[in-house]
Amino acid sequence: MRHDSTPPPAQRTRRTEGTRVRGRAERVVSAVLTATHEELGRVGYGALRIEDVAARSGVNKTTIYRRWPTKAELVAASMRAAAEEEEFLDTGTLRGDLLTVVMRTVRTCQTPTGRGIVRMMQMERADPEVEALSRILRDQRRRRNTALLERGIARGELPAGVNTELIIDLIFGGIYTRLIHRGEDVSEDYAAAAIDTVIAGACAGAARLSNESQQQK
Amino acid sequence: MRHDSTPPPAQRTRRTEGTRVRGRAERVVSAVLTATHEELGRVGYGALRIEDVAARSGVNKTTIYRRWPTKAELVAASMRAAAEEEEFLDTGTLRGDLLTVVMRTVRTCQTPTGRGIVRMMQMERADPEVEALSRILRDQRRRRNTALLERGIARGELPAGVNTELIIDLIFGGIYTRLIHRGEDVSEDYAAAAIDTVIAGACAGAARLSNESQQQK
Repeated sequence: MRHDSTPPPAQRTRRTEGTRVRGRAERVVSAVLTATHEELGRVGYGALRIEDVAARSGVNKTTIYRRWPTKAELVAASMRAAAEEEEFLDTGTLRGDLLTVVMRTVRTCQTPTGRGIVRMMQMERADPEVEALSRILRDQRRRRNTALLERGIARGELPAGVNTELIIDLIFGGIYTRLIHRGEDVSEDYAAAAIDTVIAGACAGAARLSNESQQQK
Repeated sequence: MRHDSTPPPAQRTRRTEGTRVRGRAERVVSAVLTATHEELGRVGYGALRIEDVAARSGVNKTTIYRRWPTKAELVAASMRAAAEEEEFLDTGTLRGDLLTVVMRTVRTCQTPTGRGIVRMMQMERADPEVEALSRILRDQRRRRNTALLERGIARGELPAGVNTELIIDLIFGGIYTRLIHRGEDVSEDYAAAAIDTVIAGACAGAARLSNESQQQK
């Protein structure tokens, strides 16, 4: 019986190889995208060379080109992958979610790669491909942040009718200006006070905007 | 008598010339600083040439060099002059003061020179002289904004013990991120809702930070 339940050698080999190949392909993609992210932080967008990504990831240049025919596609894929890693988040409270998101960014900006990517986005923003990359990240983050706030409204932590875009601008704009544009430290207490101030102001009813003003935005 | 009170021709001429010379010197300084500001907005810091400032202002290059021996000194003087123009402000209420400051910046950022200077500060921030310029502007604005908030605390519009730096980060960081880094419009209603939300949150007591956290900043 034990002997019968064992698949014949050919089938077993095929199945094993299938798993191995899929696993290897995923590892290659992950290695290339991580290397791209690191190179981007190191030299920026204009100076990024596929050769250096190949050397850093240990993946052949032609393999990289086959999957991502242009530098713009490769870098966009690496940005999406980095942003997706932080997509799923639910601490149970709006304050907890916002604080987690903010402190994650604070820690990212303390790494050389994170600092380099921020620098790249500012210094090379005249490059339309860099602007397109910034838009990918911005849209991804805005969707995530809007979802967090809507969950907070559903739980009654924010009043219905609050302008979510305004709340996002105040909390993230306020903290990131300090962190990124002025290069100053943001402690967890500081971030919490910022979040609490904006939530308290919104709960006092000050973050509503007329439809007219919303259309104007 | 009328004849006696009239100064003798020589004295009169000297005094008139004195006035004329001082007036002319001021006009020269103002023309050069304005031209510098405009050139900075047009080409940025690295590419700015004293020759072009001379041509735009109609002032001789050697006259410019005599007063401002280096490009860094000339540009710093032009930044200070532009910032000083908006130093004095008192609408009588904190909300009015903040809204005036914000909407002034919104309008400045809509001019080609304003947009160019913002672009220069981002794209050339790796240049230590540009970083020094940004610091001049930042310090000047922070002093002005802190003074506005302290007047608001004195008038009872904000609770004592509020962290003024946090309030400044939230209001200005929030609005300027939208305006400058995302290039989106900021309507007066939007700015007012942002200011009201942060003031309401601060009045609810959420913008206090322990001494420890303040020291950490």
